Amino acid sequence: MQFLSDNAASVHPKVWEAMRSADDPQPPYDNDALSLALDDAFSALFGRPCSALWVASGTAANCLALAAMVPPHGGVICHREAHIETDEGGAPGFYTHGAKLILVDGEGAKLEPAVIDAAISGIRKDVHQVQPQALSVTQASEYGRCYQPDEIAALAHCAASHGLALHVDGARFANVVAFLGCTPWEACGGASTLSFGCVKNGGMSAEALVLFDSGLADVVRLRRKRAGHLQSKGRFMAAQVLAMLKGDLWLENAHAANAAAAELASAAAGRLMHPVEANEIFLNLAAAESEALRSQGFSFYDWGEGGARMVTSWNSNPAHVAALARAISAL
Amino acid sequence: MQFLSDNAASVHPKVWEAMRSADDPQPPYDNDALSLALDDAFSALFGRPCSALWVASGTAANCLALAAMVPPHGGVICHREAHIETDEGGAPGFYTHGAKLILVDGEGAKLEPAVIDAAISGIRKDVHQVQPQALSVTQASEYGRCYQPDEIAALAHCAASHGLALHVDGARFANVVAFLGCTPWEACGGASTLSFGCVKNGGMSAEALVLFDSGLADVVRLRRKRAGHLQSKGRFMAAQVLAMLKGDLWLENAHAANAAAAELASAAAGRLMHPVEANEIFLNLAAAESEALRSQGFSFYDWGEGGARMVTSWNSNPAHVAALARAISAL
Amino acid sequence: MQFLSDNAASVHPKVWEAMRSADDPQPPYDNDALSLALDDAFSALFGRPCSALWVASGTAANCLALAAMVPPHGGVICHREAHIETDEGGAPGFYTHGAKLILVDGEGAKLEPAVIDAAISGIRKDVHQVQPQALSVTQASEYGRCYQPDEIAALAHCAASHGLALHVDGARFANVVAFLGCTPWEACGGASTLSFGCVKNGGMSAEALVLFDSGLADVVRLRRKRAGHLQSKGRFMAAQVLAMLKGDLWLENAHAANAAAAELASAAAGRLMHPVEANEIFLNLAAAESEALRSQGFSFYDWGEGGARMVTSWNSNPAHVAALARAISAL
Amino acid sequence: MQFLSDNAASVHPKVWEAMRSADDPQPPYDNDALSLALDDAFSALFGRPCSALWVASGTAANCLALAAMVPPHGGVICHREAHIETDEGGAPGFYTHGAKLILVDGEGAKLEPAVIDAAISGIRKDVHQVQPQALSVTQASEYGRCYQPDEIAALAHCAASHGLALHVDGARFANVVAFLGCTPWEACGGASTLSFGCVKNGGMSAEALVLFDSGLADVVRLRRKRAGHLQSKGRFMAAQVLAMLKGDLWLENAHAANAAAAELASAAAGRLMHPVEANEIFLNLAAAESEALRSQGFSFYDWGEGGARMVTSWNSNPAHVAALARAISAL
Repeated sequence: MQFLSDNAASVHPKVWEAMRSADDPQPPYDNDALSLALDDAFSALFGRPCSALWVASGTAANCLALAAMVPPHGGVICHREAHIETDEGGAPGFYTHGAKLILVDGEGAKLEPAVIDAAISGIRKDVHQVQPQALSVTQASEYGRCYQPDEIAALAHCAASHGLALHVDGARFANVVAFLGCTPWEACGGASTLSFGCVKNGGMSAEALVLFDSGLADVVRLRRKRAGHLQSKGRFMAAQVLAMLKGDLWLENAHAANAAAAELASAAAGRLMHPVEANEIFLNLAAAESEALRSQGFSFYDWGEGGARMVTSWNSNPAHVAALARAISAL
Repeated sequence: MQFLSDNAASVHPKVWEAMRSADDPQPPYDNDALSLALDDAFSALFGRPCSALWVASGTAANCLALAAMVPPHGGVICHREAHIETDEGGAPGFYTHGAKLILVDGEGAKLEPAVIDAAISGIRKDVHQVQPQALSVTQASEYGRCYQPDEIAALAHCAASHGLALHVDGARFANVVAFLGCTPWEACGGASTLSFGCVKNGGMSAEALVLFDSGLADVVRLRRKRAGHLQSKGRFMAAQVLAMLKGDLWLENAHAANAAAAELASAAAGRLMHPVEANEIFLNLAAAESEALRSQGFSFYDWGEGGARMVTSWNSNPAHVAALARAISAL
Repeated sequence: MQFLSDNAASVHPKVWEAMRSADDPQPPYDNDALSLALDDAFSALFGRPCSALWVASGTAANCLALAAMVPPHGGVICHREAHIETDEGGAPGFYTHGAKLILVDGEGAKLEPAVIDAAISGIRKDVHQVQPQALSVTQASEYGRCYQPDEIAALAHCAASHGLALHVDGARFANVVAFLGCTPWEACGGASTLSFGCVKNGGMSAEALVLFDSGLADVVRLRRKRAGHLQSKGRFMAAQVLAMLKGDLWLENAHAANAAAAELASAAAGRLMHPVEANEIFLNLAAAESEALRSQGFSFYDWGEGGARMVTSWNSNPAHVAALARAISAL
Repeated sequence: MQFLSDNAASVHPKVWEAMRSADDPQPPYDNDALSLALDDAFSALFGRPCSALWVASGTAANCLALAAMVPPHGGVICHREAHIETDEGGAPGFYTHGAKLILVDGEGAKLEPAVIDAAISGIRKDVHQVQPQALSVTQASEYGRCYQPDEIAALAHCAASHGLALHVDGARFANVVAFLGCTPWEACGGASTLSFGCVKNGGMSAEALVLFDSGLADVVRLRRKRAGHLQSKGRFMAAQVLAMLKGDLWLENAHAANAAAAELASAAAGRLMHPVEANEIFLNLAAAESEALRSQGFSFYDWGEGGARMVTSWNSNPAHVAALARAISAL
């Protein structure tokens, strides 16, 4: 009974189906009809013109976005626990050619305008200190916390007031929109770029990088190739992404994962480290308790001393979820 | 009737089948059983210990290899028409952090030791000139020419005599081994790294980077992550590669593509720009002749003025091949 | 009466004299007799074989050193207030091609083994997190604090135990050796590389990068050229450095600066933010007090709210120093 | 009797004098009065607003310029024998983060619009090939050839027609203006950036990077710091450059060097490999002839088989020049 990560879940049958339907030869790279349909599909989804490119990982999506927004001598403000800082193997440094991540704090791995203002006011405006040029926000945060539309709007306003472009890392963006019940644009309003996650949500190998700043598309297409991320049979990438959007499969999957997480959160109410809003549950769990759960067949990651992280997926087995909820309640 | 590129062909049914079989959740990234099986599978194939990693493109395979072999201040000797120079969007510069491609000439885009010796003797051994540290050879060459085992051995010897590591770009390595009838190792003997192509040969999105120099594996694994090429559901990548190896599917597919190319080559005997050894045909074709063929439904790329390139695939339709052969003969 | 920075002081007459003596043409770059004498001069100074190169700034010295010690995908542990982090305009990211500075805390901007151990134990040993490969220590620290020989030895031991190479940023290394009264090697024992500062200590434009790890010299020479730091009339750079070493001018100058700082420190005894060991004084100074001093003709930098930094030089005017000491006492 | 390089010549007395006059403390880096005067001095010289920064080498000047004009994924068209390609140790790759030098041919290392047009027309306008974004021209060329004002204008027009920015490497720009008798701007008209050489022309360690495109200055200032080229006692750099401009010392020195070269060229009239326009003489010289000259005390570089390069300087000894001229005539 697996609650390790949504990273490892199966591929949704509709995604498989779309990939199989794309098997007949088409022009290579991103010249196939499916890849060419992405801009329109995302423009419709977000209610505004944008460009969208498939890439093979969230790391690539995030870092291609940042590299297009920030020159090598610039900086990116992000949370100290942001994925780009902690878990991408230094990819931002590679893609941006050495731009600096400027780290700030915030509860639940969430950023607030006041913290950003303070960080910027501490930077001398001279050539000796790296000047920030972008803000990167993770929606949902690394602790599964969602920014409300007004919170995102405030961050976008803060960024703009400092001349920073806004990037949103949406590895679990679907779970956010499902939780908030808002429009996709409301969940990232003001962003120049959005990493729109699909792989954790029923996809296989395709994430979408959405560019709301029209000036970035040409550069990102060049840099995607330069990074070895322009796959020759790109139609299989586009097929995955389009299948996620079709009939709002992305939201359906996210609702399922969120519901499973909510069920676990209820059972763990007294021991939650963070409110559960998306599909991740961080809870206090003594070593003996963790062992007790594992001995019953549940797998999950430890989270520091006395903590644990459990993640649900679009296809978390309801019986497993119920069993885990009972087991937690019984601790 | 498509002869544009093997890049666009369908995915082989056995590859599809292997991917579907990998759908059940497994540990993410490359910790799944399939990814962990790659080292042994390629060690068996090449008859010597090696490491093998999946990546999403030949460009990524080539450039991760080069970056592991050459420091940023070094150089890579390659043919003036090598894919890394002409068609990878500057990816070698990105991955190696600015190392220099040192270009040399050679008939049929093939390299010879004497040319390499001459290039190196023209480089002053001081800090003002970039010092080469690797040699990159494309097997088959960009004009579909194969290096015989003794030619590869001579290049490997030449490289070693200058202290250069040897990289082999094997985007169509299967076609070479099928053509030469030698062992895989004989076709790249002496290489430190090999980009082992799968996508053009019936795969979907996975190439294999094979490292014969055991010291490189750890670095390449770190750099693959840093480049955003460590996919979270890596099992689908490994499944493709293993399916290609199983029962020598890779050779079977290559034989089929080569046979189709040979059939076209026979028909075009008097107008070949290069001997046809793998699955690419470069032929002299006047503009009117090209138009005549296209009007009969054949698609292919022009190759400069008065030339054309046709590429066959593992599943080139025999009827289409026969039709094209007849049409060329009839010109 | 200037106490802003030793960065702005005059050039020592003996340095001028040495430069003038180097005016006759010699082979360009670093092939002149003076440049060729550097290795021996520093080997004698440190009592062990080493290589030494001139460069035009401490930033270049630090970053050439780090780039030779750390691959692009690696990390450097340093203090959160280290000059390489706060005041080099992102140069470490440029020179190392995006390696990461891993920041730790410590009183007086000094590092301790326990803090380094803790930082490393918090890094997962996988490809998702950047792995440190070097430790950078500033001697004297950014707050003018010196590491005692046993403290440096403990840091070197700590670094070695984690497989890290040790870099010492010695922008004010002379002041340290003058303060400690130890040998130069004792003040940086175990370092692989040392940025040996001259410019703040009476030089004009030449710092020395000292390499105790013999394997690094060739790489650093290549990279110095690649960074545009191999000046064609290098003899004027070498002349400066050699003049500093001759007759221990470097120590004489540092003693003078330290003595001036000590005089100020006595006067400011009750309001020091840090013990004064080298030539920098950080003191609590209310806004009105700062204004009072400035109105008497003393120039210095504010240091946060209610603080000030004063720096003495090899040629701080004794009358000015005495006047400032009196003025501080009189506050 | 030294004719190896102007790189090694002495420093002009007026430059020494200006440096000595700058010895009193001033604000560090480029905040001193001399550094602040550079923009105006060069704006006056070129008759149009521009920014000017000192840097320590022509390599740094060239590469800071290119990096400001070309993104990492772009390309720079230059001559196959351009200094940036052959003699800067890969510095363009370092500074531009891997942009590509696109090499073209031309007699006397000079570029012509038709060659540039042809090179560009050979580049497919897709993401697979590196797209040029700048043109770099060496004035005088690597063989001492000058572009006439109309030739420079034609290159500038050609560059603009392709959307390329124009960089002029003017390591020996003074010799060009002295030779042509035109205005400085006519010798580089249309350039966005100019590396204005001083070191070969009587300076010690300061070159000037002149930016005619006002949008580049802020970026170049940030990148100069990031490259470790912002020296703390920058006033000594500015002093050198200003001394060169004062009273047209730069032209006076160049006239002297050119005159010496012309004297040698007359003597070598029948054996010149290139017309002598600046201060370099390339001549056919059999091995025995070279030996004969060397045995008479003349030092110079071989230039390939049967060739030699001789370079005159601002202070070439007239007696030595006359002696060499006689010796060549007597061969």
